[in-house]
Amino acid sequence: MRSQAPLRACGALLDYKTVKFALTRNRRVGLLHRLLQLGVLGYVLGWVLLARKGYQDTDRAPRAAVVTKMKGAAVAEAVGKGRRLWDAADYARPPQGENVLFLVTNFIATAQQSQGTCPESPSVLDAVCTEDADCPVGNPVVHGNGIKTGKCVMFNTTHSTCEIYGWCPVENNTVPRKPLLAEAENFTLFIKNTVHFTKFNFSKCNALQTNDPTYFKSCTYDPFFNRSCPVFRVRDMVEAAGETFGDLALLGGSIGVRIEWDCDLDHPAAQCQPQYSFSLQDRRYNFRTASYYWDSQRRLYRNLLKLYGIRFDISVHGQSFASRAGKKWSLPCEEKLLGNALSREASVAEDLTWVL
Amino acid sequence: MRSQAPLRACGALLDYKTVKFALTRNRRVGLLHRLLQLGVLGYVLGWVLLARKGYQDTDRAPRAAVVTKMKGAAVAEAVGKGRRLWDAADYARPPQGENVLFLVTNFIATAQQSQGTCPESPSVLDAVCTEDADCPVGNPVVHGNGIKTGKCVMFNTTHSTCEIYGWCPVENNTVPRKPLLAEAENFTLFIKNTVHFTKFNFSKCNALQTNDPTYFKSCTYDPFFNRSCPVFRVRDMVEAAGETFGDLALLGGSIGVRIEWDCDLDHPAAQCQPQYSFSLQDRRYNFRTASYYWDSQRRLYRNLLKLYGIRFDISVHGQSFASRAGKKWSLPCEEKLLGNALSREASVAEDLTWVL
Amino acid sequence: MRSQAPLRACGALLDYKTVKFALTRNRRVGLLHRLLQLGVLGYVLGWVLLARKGYQDTDRAPRAAVVTKMKGAAVAEAVGKGRRLWDAADYARPPQGENVLFLVTNFIATAQQSQGTCPESPSVLDAVCTEDADCPVGNPVVHGNGIKTGKCVMFNTTHSTCEIYGWCPVENNTVPRKPLLAEAENFTLFIKNTVHFTKFNFSKCNALQTNDPTYFKSCTYDPFFNRSCPVFRVRDMVEAAGETFGDLALLGGSIGVRIEWDCDLDHPAAQCQPQYSFSLQDRRYNFRTASYYWDSQRRLYRNLLKLYGIRFDISVHGQSFASRAGKKWSLPCEEKLLGNALSREASVAEDLTWVL
Repeated sequence: MRSQAPLRACGALLDYKTVKFALTRNRRVGLLHRLLQLGVLGYVLGWVLLARKGYQDTDRAPRAAVVTKMKGAAVAEAVGKGRRLWDAADYARPPQGENVLFLVTNFIATAQQSQGTCPESPSVLDAVCTEDADCPVGNPVVHGNGIKTGKCVMFNTTHSTCEIYGWCPVENNTVPRKPLLAEAENFTLFIKNTVHFTKFNFSKCNALQTNDPTYFKSCTYDPFFNRSCPVFRVRDMVEAAGETFGDLALLGGSIGVRIEWDCDLDHPAAQCQPQYSFSLQDRRYNFRTASYYWDSQRRLYRNLLKLYGIRFDISVHGQSFASRAGKKWSLPCEEKLLGNALSREASVAEDLTWVL
Repeated sequence: MRSQAPLRACGALLDYKTVKFALTRNRRVGLLHRLLQLGVLGYVLGWVLLARKGYQDTDRAPRAAVVTKMKGAAVAEAVGKGRRLWDAADYARPPQGENVLFLVTNFIATAQQSQGTCPESPSVLDAVCTEDADCPVGNPVVHGNGIKTGKCVMFNTTHSTCEIYGWCPVENNTVPRKPLLAEAENFTLFIKNTVHFTKFNFSKCNALQTNDPTYFKSCTYDPFFNRSCPVFRVRDMVEAAGETFGDLALLGGSIGVRIEWDCDLDHPAAQCQPQYSFSLQDRRYNFRTASYYWDSQRRLYRNLLKLYGIRFDISVHGQSFASRAGKKWSLPCEEKLLGNALSREASVAEDLTWVL
Repeated sequence: MRSQAPLRACGALLDYKTVKFALTRNRRVGLLHRLLQLGVLGYVLGWVLLARKGYQDTDRAPRAAVVTKMKGAAVAEAVGKGRRLWDAADYARPPQGENVLFLVTNFIATAQQSQGTCPESPSVLDAVCTEDADCPVGNPVVHGNGIKTGKCVMFNTTHSTCEIYGWCPVENNTVPRKPLLAEAENFTLFIKNTVHFTKFNFSKCNALQTNDPTYFKSCTYDPFFNRSCPVFRVRDMVEAAGETFGDLALLGGSIGVRIEWDCDLDHPAAQCQPQYSFSLQDRRYNFRTASYYWDSQRRLYRNLLKLYGIRFDISVHGQSFASRAGKKWSLPCEEKLLGNALSREASVAEDLTWVL
């Protein structure tokens, strides 16, 4: 082959090599060839650009701000304790309204614990004993309620357990047979979420931008009829996760709430609406918390609460598409109010709106 | 065309087919051809490698650790309650110094609530009544403070509302006309952030690595003159988000703090400095929290606080570029101290530094 | 060259242009050519498909749910305060078991503070004084404990400091020489983590799915022998981060816990196991928290606690590979129990399992 033959170095540098072509003057072959080219062009224009919107840019990492608020009140009737009303300040933990929140549905209260000695709970491994030798003194305790004193004492008429030094009396770990706050299924959770797509400088709120101050006090989310009201009934969320409220309320559980934004910003902003989905993350959820006080002799006491309940874990995901040129109208959750008007009308506004 | 003609199968397998070339011995065409090739080479070397640093690797998913601490004290004067000083243990919730934190700037206190019956607040929907028939007994309560007892009673001289069973008396929902903790604008927020780029095993702290123990007690962040001191004045942050402190402090609000790292690790580590940006996430932010106590007759009481204030939501983003070969000097927030020295000097160090 | 010659427009459109080929009937060249082709094919099949699993799809953004629980009890002996047992309700903050949690290992308690006047701490900048003129009245306080009253008073026999109005007496900032809760090294942290790969609809729990109710009460994580028991001893975690527990416990610190999932879902689900890694995020970590109470004259008091301890910051990362066709068997943390059985056996189950 000529192109591979050795040539004088300098001259060769300035040679120009090109591929040889054969030209066929056949109308059939030519037509077929042009049709193929048209097909490719049609695919690019029709499918990639129009159907798949290949001319659009994508933002897959939105910033999200989530603020939550739980509402509702219910009466719990504890045996021998009388009835007590629970409201949001009682059952929502932490109270700040973050994206992970907890609703108490059941609890075991152990009142007036103080430091001292008492029999360990029989449910602790190795605590059941028949004689003092079963209870080595001062053992490090990992799965118990205190430090063994070396004695074996009566826990109740049927069990003997090691005596411990710790918060006494130890917790009574019998869960009630039905959730104490069974009415919590009617409580509501308001999830206020602003999503911001940095690439397009576009913000959108998941709640309707309304001037009606009572709207969020009376509406409830419905996937078909009311998608602009992010006020969710607790029972609806539990059922959307495939569970029944009664079962989950007894020993607690964890529900994942996923907010998914998938927006074409070339369409009106009002069409950019999130999808909500709910899934069971975990069955059984509880933790202990205590409040401390001193009696008149400056002796420390605590009230221990083992709280069972439903934990909501809210996460936000999303993507948006837009052609760079178009103008986008942001609809963030925060409305621009005039400073003065805000101050003057503060207490009025407070009365009227479902303030977050 | 010969190459498409049928041949005997086996022989054809060992045929070697190559494209035919035409060689042009024209100096002009040849020169143009080589110049074009030089241009492409120049572009690759000059633009892609040198200007765009195409030889560098990128890490877009850094790990970040954020610890915050709020400092400052201010006197709040509540009508009829006298003056009271608030310090960080009072106004920062939760106290742990996480990446989402809350500064109390206003509050409504409802002291000594206990379980009983009292008139519902007139701001609750459906609570205003003219006769007992307006108040059906035991209705499930979602947007009220308790369970209706069926009576219509006087709330004040102008309003009658349904009587409820719940925490009594109900909260007085009149917001003060000016924020009680107006001086909170001078409080400071220390944001300590270490970023770690796994791909390059490079860590960097946002705070100056200094041996001067009083540095962080006296410095304040300034975007031009003091970028190594991540101690932010609250008012500066609110104003950087485009708001005035007074307006936001009255009914609360949520400020997003974004820390953005964009580092070329082939440069000295000291040049790898984050950018801070602030944005308003939401106007109006409040929540309720309660503390419980028992009187001498073992009756349960609570003090209810409706807290208004500013929520700071800190997020860290970043990317770094580096050529694989270069050596990187990490400057994480944690300094390597000698264990013994640490123990011995602990109480001294404690006195001297703005400890986190 | 013919192909570049001008032709009549319409006819040219239907011309078909193709590259000219040269066919070489040389067995050696042909064989070499086919061998090269076989090599490429072999590389694609062998390396890309079989070794690198190029036929598999990848999911790099799993959803993760984390629930934690700390266990253990230890006795702290404070000078002059006697011994006191601390259990999880005392030392875990917040108690909810989130992915960022804090274990108290040391503390400074300041009991019975009330609003009044007292000398400022000498560790505050500018607080040390020799005469009243050093203490300008009512200065805004950022790094102190209260508002200066304008007097210079004796703090102790060696120091004079400005008098302040605030919570009095001020905190005593001498850290104990050794951690009060030194035994916390034996506490355990249970990390329950479900990871979900949306693309493959595959879920996996980091804990062994066992029917033995006592398993998680007695096992401890070991990177070689016991990777299915995510119960971590605190000291093991601190040491894996390259620190000694005693040093970190004294003034606190922050440990990052990273859970890394890297799963080939075409293998049995049991082989999909996470890797745990631990790193020191920050030395020194503390915060203040207060509990409030009223005396019989309705005067407000608080007990201030400055808590030092270890903060655990758990993050989950992961990727999974799978061929689309294969069937995946999810093993999430939540087991499907029958609703009725759950209710009936609730109190029994409660007794037996390490309930989360």
